Amino acid sequence: MTSQPPRSGEFETIDRYLAPLSRGFAGARGLTDDTASLIIGDGNEAVITLDTMVSGVHFLPGDPPDLIARKLLRVNLSDLASAGATPRTYFLSMSLPSSLIDGWIAAFAGGLDADQKSFGVVLGGGDTTSTPGPLTLSLTAIGETPLGQAISRAGAAPGQDIYVSGTIGDAALALALIQSAGVEQALREAPGLVARYRLPEPRVLLGISLRGLATAAIDVSDGLMADLGHICRISGVGAEVAAATVPLSPEARHFLSKRKELSEIVYCGGDDYELLFTARPEDAAKLSALSEKLALPLTRIGRTVAGDRPVLVSESGEEVSLASAGWRHF
Amino acid sequence: MTSQPPRSGEFETIDRYLAPLSRGFAGARGLTDDTASLIIGDGNEAVITLDTMVSGVHFLPGDPPDLIARKLLRVNLSDLASAGATPRTYFLSMSLPSSLIDGWIAAFAGGLDADQKSFGVVLGGGDTTSTPGPLTLSLTAIGETPLGQAISRAGAAPGQDIYVSGTIGDAALALALIQSAGVEQALREAPGLVARYRLPEPRVLLGISLRGLATAAIDVSDGLMADLGHICRISGVGAEVAAATVPLSPEARHFLSKRKELSEIVYCGGDDYELLFTARPEDAAKLSALSEKLALPLTRIGRTVAGDRPVLVSESGEEVSLASAGWRHF
Repeated sequence: MTSQPPRSGEFETIDRYLAPLSRGFAGARGLTDDTASLIIGDGNEAVITLDTMVSGVHFLPGDPPDLIARKLLRVNLSDLASAGATPRTYFLSMSLPSSLIDGWIAAFAGGLDADQKSFGVVLGGGDTTSTPGPLTLSLTAIGETPLGQAISRAGAAPGQDIYVSGTIGDAALALALIQSAGVEQALREAPGLVARYRLPEPRVLLGISLRGLATAAIDVSDGLMADLGHICRISGVGAEVAAATVPLSPEARHFLSKRKELSEIVYCGGDDYELLFTARPEDAAKLSALSEKLALPLTRIGRTVAGDRPVLVSESGEEVSLASAGWRHF
Repeated sequence: MTSQPPRSGEFETIDRYLAPLSRGFAGARGLTDDTASLIIGDGNEAVITLDTMVSGVHFLPGDPPDLIARKLLRVNLSDLASAGATPRTYFLSMSLPSSLIDGWIAAFAGGLDADQKSFGVVLGGGDTTSTPGPLTLSLTAIGETPLGQAISRAGAAPGQDIYVSGTIGDAALALALIQSAGVEQALREAPGLVARYRLPEPRVLLGISLRGLATAAIDVSDGLMADLGHICRISGVGAEVAAATVPLSPEARHFLSKRKELSEIVYCGGDDYELLFTARPEDAAKLSALSEKLALPLTRIGRTVAGDRPVLVSESGEEVSLASAGWRHF
C-alpha cells in the first residue's frame, strides 16, 4: 500500500480495517508491504479478474457500504466462477472522497469480512488514495484451476446445449421497480428481487464443478442475450434460445404478470450473475446430477447452431426481436 | 472486461487500443474474456502489487497521456523490483470521464506499448468504466520469484549496511521547481530532474539480482527517511543514515547550491523509485560487483542499529531533525 492519506490517515485505515482482513494469509505480509506473495498449487495456474465500481455509476452514494463491498467482491468471484477457478485472494483499490467518514470504511470492511468467510478468500493487499471525485473501487481477484482447465468463452461448437443456472431477470426487474417506484416501495413489493439486485450469489461451486463439463461459460452480467452473444462471437457459433424455457423465479413471474411491458428485461437485463454455459449433449445426465448435488437449478434453454449470433425463439418457432441488445447501468 | 461503454464504446476501445497490448500472452485470451490464466513457473510463487493514480492527485490533467501510462506501469514495476520479482503481466482499471477523447487513449496505450517492450511485460486484462469524476487508473502487476525468495521489509537486523541505488531527490526537486516556477521554466532550468519526476526508472534487474542479498528492501516513493522508517518499523530495527553520503545527481547538486532552503527535500521528498535496501556487511564485495555489472551506483548510506526508527546524522555526528516526515503529493 502506498501514500495518499485520506481522513484518518491511510496507515490507520489499513491497520484498523484492512489488515485484519488479511489474517491467515502469510503472503499478504500483514499489509505492511507494497507486494504480496501467493503460492499457486503444483499443477495449477492462476486465474485473474478485475472489476471496478464507481459511485453514481455502478451503485448509489447512499447504498449500504457493506452491500457495496460484498457486491464488489462477488462480481469478481462470479468472473472467477465463470472460468471454473477456485478463489484464493483479492487486491483492493479504494479512491476515497474526503467526505467519507470512518464509519463508512468500518462497515465496508465488515461486508468484506462476512463474504471472505462465505467464499474462503482473504485480502492480499491493495492501495488507498484520496480522490476529489466519486468513491471509486477496483478489485483484482485471483483464483486457480488445474493447468489448462480454465473455462473460457471460446470453446462452444454447434450442436451443444445451452444452460443457465438459477433464475434470470430478478435483478433487472428489481432495478426497473426501484427506478420507477423508489427503493422503499420496491422492497415492499418485491423484497426477493431487490435482494438479488443488491447481493448477487456468485456460483463458485458450480463453476469449479463445470471444469471439463462446460465447453464455454460466462456469467450473466450484461444480460442473458448479450452475454450469450459474447460466447457466440468468441466461439464462432450461433445460438437458439427458447424464450419460454428461460427460468424465472416465482416472484419475477408474479411481478411480470402485472407488468407485461417489462418482459423483455428478462432477456436483456443484467446483473443476474448466474452462469450461462454450453455443454455436450452427452453430458446432460452429469449436469442433471450436478444440479441435484448443488441444489441449484441448471436449465437447458437452447442449443448452439452454425452461425455467429444468438437468436431468441418464441414457442411458435419465430425469432423474437429485442429492442435493446445489452445492459446499461443507470 | 465488463460493461460501461465510454465514448466510442468499451469494446471498440479494447479491440483497438488494449487488445494489441496482450499479444503474445495466450492466457489473456485476446481480452475477450473477464478472466486471464497465468502459469507461474515450477518452483516459483506469484508476487502481486497494486497502485492507483487519480487525475489531480497523482498527476495533472494536462500531463502527456503516454507519460501517465508509463509512470503508472513503472511505479508498479518498482514495487515488484523491491520484492525481487520478475515482472510477468498486469491488469488495468480505467475509469474514464466522458470528456476524454479517443486520441488520449491511443496515446496512453502507446506509452504502455513502449514500456511493455522495455520491461518484458504484457497486458493481461482489466476493466474500463465511465466516471463522472476525474480519470482514475489502477494497475495490478504480477511477477514471480523462486518460492520463498521474495524480499520484504521485514528482514533487516542490527549491524547491517543500508544501501540506496542511483541518486536521491531528483524527482522531488523537480516537483518543487515546477510548483514554484512552472513546468516550462523547470524544463529549461533542470531538464534532467524533470525527466526523473515524469518517468521513474524501476530497478527491475537490480531487484532480481538482490534476491538472497538484500535482507529487506523498499522502493523510495514516500521519501528516503519515510521509506527507511517503514523498514525500521516492520523489521524492528533502528537506522543511522549519514546525511553527507546520500547520493545526489550532478544536476541536483547544482540546483541545491543555488537553493539551499530545499536541501531537506533530498531526505523527505518522494518519487525517486530507487531501491533502498539492507544487506549483511560480508556481502559488500558482491554488491560492489553487482553495481559494476548493472552500471548502477549502489551507495552505502548508513547502517542498522538497535532501535525502532531511522535517524539522519550530520558529518559532526549529530542528529539532523527534519521538519517533514513523509511525502505529500500536490
